[in-house]
Amino acid sequence: MNLEKPYIISVYAILRNEKGEFLLLRRSENSNTNPGKWDLPGGKLSPREALEDAVVREVWEETGISIVPGEIAGYVTFELPEKKVIAIVYNCGYVIADVKLSYEHMEYVWISLDSILEMNTLPAYFRDFFKRFVTESKKSSEPPI
Amino acid sequence: MNLEKPYIISVYAILRNEKGEFLLLRRSENSNTNPGKWDLPGGKLSPREALEDAVVREVWEETGISIVPGEIAGYVTFELPEKKVIAIVYNCGYVIADVKLSYEHMEYVWISLDSILEMNTLPAYFRDFFKRFVTESKKSSEPPI
Repeated sequence: MNLEKPYIISVYAILRNEKGEFLLLRRSENSNTNPGKWDLPGGKLSPREALEDAVVREVWEETGISIVPGEIAGYVTFELPEKKVIAIVYNCGYVIADVKLSYEHMEYVWISLDSILEMNTLPAYFRDFFKRFVTESKKSSEPPI
Repeated sequence: MNLEKPYIISVYAILRNEKGEFLLLRRSENSNTNPGKWDLPGGKLSPREALEDAVVREVWEETGISIVPGEIAGYVTFELPEKKVIAIVYNCGYVIADVKLSYEHMEYVWISLDSILEMNTLPAYFRDFFKRFVTESKKSSEPPI
């Protein structure tokens, strides 16, 4: 709530392939924020844009994949040099599709949860998000008592 | 990120009168959530509704006041019995207007920040929000070094 550093809203997508691996994109070296770092597909909400529309648009722009956003999987917050970000993460299910990167990213990978948790080049807020995701996924797949 | 308890998105408005006091509403006794508790104007995002449109709609429905949402002042998160809420709080500036309550609330008050911080019937997540608001407002009103 630093009034000198405005908040913005972003949206991100969790996408899985048929093996259950997650899609991560690697930001271009000339990116303004987090150059060369791994990222989830997603980005900034446009003015008066609905969250669901934003996540569909961002995933399409960055990967060429058409998605149908599902439930909200959680949120992450982080600070950039000029702004604070509140990011809503949508669970966008399983897809079978080729990835067509835009100029914003230079590489992509489908990667297991275990490998994600060992990555050093994924920002900590995303790694922490996936840690919570594991915990909660395990919890909800336990048989009811 | 408990997958059994879905996340929803809400929006809230901070509105001030000409004395700089904040508008709080008190929830009806027959409300499903937090009956009788104080609240900020706001509520749940509709499907595919933009955040700014939702805050304008909710404030209009609950107070009869037309607002123009300003910057995002921050966010709060909390749990209800059946869902988890991520709430985006908009700073909606100063208004001179009569409040016309809906069935959702039974009382309203324009109240100073000092008094808000002493309230026992405001949920803790809103009180904490206002505490951060004070800190950040002071910080940003300090002269630059």
